[in-house]
Formats: sequence, structure tokens, C-alpha cells
Amino acid sequence: MIKIAILGFGNIGSGVAQAIELNQDKIVQATGEKIELKYIVDIADLSASPYCDRVVRDFAVVEQDPEISIVVETIGGQRVAYDYTRRALLAGKNVVTSNKELVSEKGYELQQIAKEKGVNYLFEAAVGGGIPILRPLTQCLAINHIREIYGILNGTTNYILTRMFGENAGFEEALREAQALGYAEANPQADIDGIDACRKIAILADLAFGVNVSPAQIYTEGIRRITVADTEFARQNGYVVKLLGRAVKRADGKIYALVAPHLIEKTRPIAAVSGVFNGICVNGDLVGETMFYGSGAGKLPTASAVTGDILDIVRRQGTCCTASWSEGRADYVADLDEMNLAYFIRVHAQDAVRFQKAFPDAQPFGICGDSAGFLTEVLPTVQVNSRLEALSSKGVEILSKIRKL
Amino acid sequence: MIKIAILGFGNIGSGVAQAIELNQDKIVQATGEKIELKYIVDIADLSASPYCDRVVRDFAVVEQDPEISIVVETIGGQRVAYDYTRRALLAGKNVVTSNKELVSEKGYELQQIAKEKGVNYLFEAAVGGGIPILRPLTQCLAINHIREIYGILNGTTNYILTRMFGENAGFEEALREAQALGYAEANPQADIDGIDACRKIAILADLAFGVNVSPAQIYTEGIRRITVADTEFARQNGYVVKLLGRAVKRADGKIYALVAPHLIEKTRPIAAVSGVFNGICVNGDLVGETMFYGSGAGKLPTASAVTGDILDIVRRQGTCCTASWSEGRADYVADLDEMNLAYFIRVHAQDAVRFQKAFPDAQPFGICGDSAGFLTEVLPTVQVNSRLEALSSKGVEILSKIRKL
Repeated sequence: MIKIAILGFGNIGSGVAQAIELNQDKIVQATGEKIELKYIVDIADLSASPYCDRVVRDFAVVEQDPEISIVVETIGGQRVAYDYTRRALLAGKNVVTSNKELVSEKGYELQQIAKEKGVNYLFEAAVGGGIPILRPLTQCLAINHIREIYGILNGTTNYILTRMFGENAGFEEALREAQALGYAEANPQADIDGIDACRKIAILADLAFGVNVSPAQIYTEGIRRITVADTEFARQNGYVVKLLGRAVKRADGKIYALVAPHLIEKTRPIAAVSGVFNGICVNGDLVGETMFYGSGAGKLPTASAVTGDILDIVRRQGTCCTASWSEGRADYVADLDEMNLAYFIRVHAQDAVRFQKAFPDAQPFGICGDSAGFLTEVLPTVQVNSRLEALSSKGVEILSKIRKL
Repeated sequence: MIKIAILGFGNIGSGVAQAIELNQDKIVQATGEKIELKYIVDIADLSASPYCDRVVRDFAVVEQDPEISIVVETIGGQRVAYDYTRRALLAGKNVVTSNKELVSEKGYELQQIAKEKGVNYLFEAAVGGGIPILRPLTQCLAINHIREIYGILNGTTNYILTRMFGENAGFEEALREAQALGYAEANPQADIDGIDACRKIAILADLAFGVNVSPAQIYTEGIRRITVADTEFARQNGYVVKLLGRAVKRADGKIYALVAPHLIEKTRPIAAVSGVFNGICVNGDLVGETMFYGSGAGKLPTASAVTGDILDIVRRQGTCCTASWSEGRADYVADLDEMNLAYFIRVHAQDAVRFQKAFPDAQPFGICGDSAGFLTEVLPTVQVNSRLEALSSKGVEILSKIRKL
């Protein structure tokens, strides 16, 4: 019998409790052991919960109970979650979490503690919800030099973009709809502005390239500036618009890391990732391109990933299988100005000729409403920017500027 | 230093050697150990190979060398490969393979030996080439009751269907092209007739549902009967045609297992799996639908999966992590006549009215050339068949009959 504690009994925490109860047969089948939820640590009033007899308010109870070998942290944020995680690891307990904010900001430090203590700090659920991605990346694909990892990492923004694309809904309308359906929060900033995707690509980059990247090092642009005109140009030319987190290895060992809307050929598998689903592509030198697709959020999908980590710890009793990476460096993330990219550019229709003079090799995307669209050839971003600045200074307004994958 | 032997130095075997040599840095990073290829067992003349100094003809050399802890079996087939695998496991060595024929036919027995000996028999590369699927399925998704697993499991047939769909190429023309490009073998039977896909879905069903399924229990239909008319009807109505391996859990614990062409809505992510790529969908009670996509064959992608298994063994030194399943039963795979499905049916245009009388709820797919297409509602297959037989007996020729996913 393995005894665990869940810290934070919100949506995910209660989902883990539910998963363990409902699917105890699968746990026994996979590990030969039963798992018992001994404690729930939460300050909320859970007296109406069927688990109310297990609620404790003081984390020290868990910390000091030698029966607890695995702690599930589903508090979120960096404050209490950090304190409890640290203390649990130092007390020699394994910690499993879905907390992307904490892993992206403090994962390196917490992994170091876990390694010293010979325990695991696992966070499959922190990226892509229920989608198996971190373990395949660090185990099945371990022999590959990863060239690039990118993905649709946020379901809220993907839902909004799918609605804008499919039904020509405006951004505000699609956002309100996502909020009404519970896909977006009342304060949607972390999703809409790419902050959530930034945390996830930071974690993916840590694991894919083995060097710590902090969210602050990642250029992050959300989807507020995407218009129906952009999605319409995309559709008419065989593309979709998606918010991607991307981390790309350069020949010199540095990486590019960014979160930004991208134009993607609609024939690519990731272009078919619609609604609240997530998809993550890993490009390795041996395996080529792979993609992992599924529910990127939600109570039970996330609980599936959390419990997958728990079962892995149970099966490997006493061994540490935690992936680790080396300390970050300020100059490790390269300047995006150096990145070679094609850009979708939209200008007023009357400026189309002037635009084409500045970008003679750009592919015209036609006219839509009163604007003209173009896809530039692949150029160093610094060149694109300097030509666009020259155009701006001559009075050409740049209505949209979207990277192409 | 971990010393290994490769049995069978063809395309995959030499790919594994190449992967280990090229990406030794990643091996050390992932495991802290180096891997040395000590023996190659092959009866071919490899005197021109850079590895010729390691070639031995007698497997007993490997079997009796206590330095060899991991044996890579890339011989293929069931004869020599079975003998050597069995002997290697009995000698206490871990075995890693890409041999889907052997795993699907003898996997249960070989797993039993591996468990008794406390070693691993791993075969991530046997399904989906380089795509991580077996480990995510049995580890990350372990807590899920799997409801269904299905996939595009054969790149050759998917290439042919993609060509037929995209460019209206006929089956024979697309096949010749696939052969010219090296995607199909001179004798393409195992691919075209679904035998390869059958072996892979047998392995997936073993692991997803925990009970052995033998390929002989799986209804297997290839793509020879798919015509350009079928793909044209599909396109015009928002579908694609793909060869799927499927295993579906029933409420009574039995499963349906089949390999057959399917009509798939083009909005589903698996519909975007084109050319020689594979995609495998896993539907679990907690996680919902997930998909795993990538190169389903090829020297280096397959070597990526084989070495992923090797690294896992090295990291877990001395522990057995092999997934296992229980013995099969004759009545475990249910009669497909009982399966509820919608079918695409094509008849001569002049028979359209008579068809519609027999299937009043079928959705008309229009007329294309001199044939009419319909999509039936979801019905028990036995009912569809009896109505079609009645039509046949009245002289209505059934030109196509394709399941809808």
C-alpha cells in the first residue's frame, strides 16, 4: 500500500483523487500495489467533501509522516507550492505536480534537491495536460539530438483562433464565447498573452536541450493582435494561424525560444489541432518529426498524467528517474533578430505596390477587404524589420506581421 | 561500459549501429554510460563493413559472453529470430527488437521468459517505427481504461492511399510509384493486404487491454479493393480513406479487432496523417483522445526507438520494466458482425433508388461518374450485411463497402 498526500484540492487535485478511486484496478494491474489517499492539505472548507476526513491544514503533518512517500502538488503558483515542494523533497518524499509556473521558474533548483535526496520530482502534467510528452521526449527519444520542439500549448487561445478561423468570429467575440464555455478564465491574460504557453515551452526547452531556460528569456507575444482579416488571408492561401511555443537549436549550441502566432501550412499535422486540444511536435536528428496530440487541460486528462507519474514512481521504488538539466546562461537564448523566417505581412491595399518594391520576392496573398497580404521569403528577421521600418517611415502602415512556421 | 550485440545487420540493425556511434554523446548524457557494439551476428558477407571486426556467425558466442547484457534482434521473421531471442532471454540477457512478426506471434511466451529471468524484452520499434507509443501507452496512460486504440500503422499503404486521394492516381499506379521510391517492396503483399498492420494492432491490443491477441484472431482486409471512385466520393463529402488497425473494448470485456480501410472525417487529426507517416490514436477513460504521430518506418527513426529501449534498460539496471499481459482466449475477440458501424456504400447510379429504399436513413454522397455513394447510419454490421445481401439477390451490385471510423 502506497500512501500519498494531495496538496491543493481544486479542480486538478480532486481529479487525481477521483482517478485513483475510480481506476484503482488499473493501478494494481500496473504496479501490483494499491494507492491510498491519506491526506489532503487545503485551507478551504472541505467539510462537504467525501474526503473531508483526510483534510489537514498543516503541511507539517504530511512532511513528518514517514508513511507518505509521494506528495501531489496541485496548488499552483510559486509561493506556497514552492515552499511545500521544497520541504517535501528535503523530507525525502517524491513530488508529482501539474504546476507549470513553479516548474518553469524553479524546476532547476527543485530537480537538484530531488537528485541530492534520491527522490523524484515529476511533472508530466505541467505540459500538454494529459498528453504524454515529457517522458517520451526524455526516454523514448533520448538518443536524438533535438533540433526543434514546438507546439500548440494553450487550449484557450487555440479555441479562440479555431473559432476566428472557422466562423470568422472576431477576437473579442471568440474570447467571450470561450469564457462562457469555461475554456477561458474571467481574467484571461495568462492565456491570451501567451504567458501560459511561455511557461510550457520553457519546460520543453529545458528537457529537449538540457540547459535551463527561464520564462523571462523567452520572447512572448499573444493573440490579441490577430484579426479576422489575418485568418481570412491564411485560409484563402492554404494556411491556418496558431499560437506556437517554439524552441529551436542553432548550430552554435544556442537556441531561439519564442511564443508567437504563426502561419502554418494546413497540410501539416499540427494545423489539424483544433479547439481546446494541444499538439506538440518534436524534431530529432534520427526520428525526424513526431507529434503528440490530446487534451491539453481539464480535470481528468490532467489527472491521468499526474497519476501516470505516480505509477512510475511506484514501479521504480527507491530509484530516481527524474530528468535533469544544467544551469542556464544569460547568453544561451539567442537574439530573435538573427532568426531566419518568412513573415506574413498585411498592409493597406493602396500600399501593396510600395510593399512589393521593398520585398520583391514576397509572394502575394491577394487582396481581402481593404488590405493586401504577402508572404516574404525566408530572411533574417533583422532584415525584415529594417525594410518594414523603412516602409513605415514612408507612411506605409504595417497592419499585421506574423511569423510562418 | 555497456556491451551489446546486434543480431541481423540489415537496414535496421546497421541503423542501430550508426545511431549508437553518431549519438554516443546523447547516450552518455542520458545514462552516464557508454555503449559499445561488441558483436554483430549475421551470416551475410560483411567483410566490407566498417564493423567487420565484430562480425560472428555463431550466436553461441553472444549467448555465452557474460559481458553482453543487451541483445538487439533485428533479424525479422519467426524462425531464427525466435530461437535466438529465446536463448538470449534464457541466458539472462535483455532483448530489444523491432520484429513485429515475432512479437505479435510469440510475444506472450517471450515476455513470460523475460519475467522469469528478471530481464526485459522491449519492442517500442515494432509498432510505429520511431514514434513513441508503447511506453506512453503502458506508462503515462497506465491508469486509463483504454476504450479504443486505432491507427494508420503501415506507411506503404498510407502512401498509396494519399497518392490516390491527392492526385487521383489509380491503385496500381500508386503502388508502382511506391515501389520505385522504395516505400513498397517488390512483393508488397504484407503491406497491401494489411498483414503488417495486423501484427501491429495485435501488439497494441495486447498492451492496451492486457490480454493476448494473436494476429490470426484479427479480421484483416487490405486496400486492393479501394478505387479512385471511393477516394473521390470521400473527398467530395469531407472524408479521407485510410487503412486502419483498430481494437475496441466492448462493455462485456471482449474486444473487436480488425484491419480494414475506413472513411474518416477530414477534420480529425488522424486524417492529416499523410504519405509514409503513421499515426496512432489512444482513447482512454480519463485522458480522452490522444494521438502519436511520426515516421512509422525507416532506418534511423526505427533505430531511434530501438536505442530508446536500450537506454531505458541501462538506466534501470537490474530491474525488469517489461510490460506483460495475460494469456489469450479463443472467445476474447468478438464477432465483427455484432459491431455497430456506419458504412460507405457505392452502387451503380441506376441502383441508387433501390439502395435508398433498403437504407432509407442513409445519407446520399451524390453521384460520381456512373456510381452513387451513400453513408448508412450506425447499424449492427449484421443488419447492414443482410440488407446488402437482399439487394444483391435482386441484382444490385455492391461496388464498395467501407467502414466509417
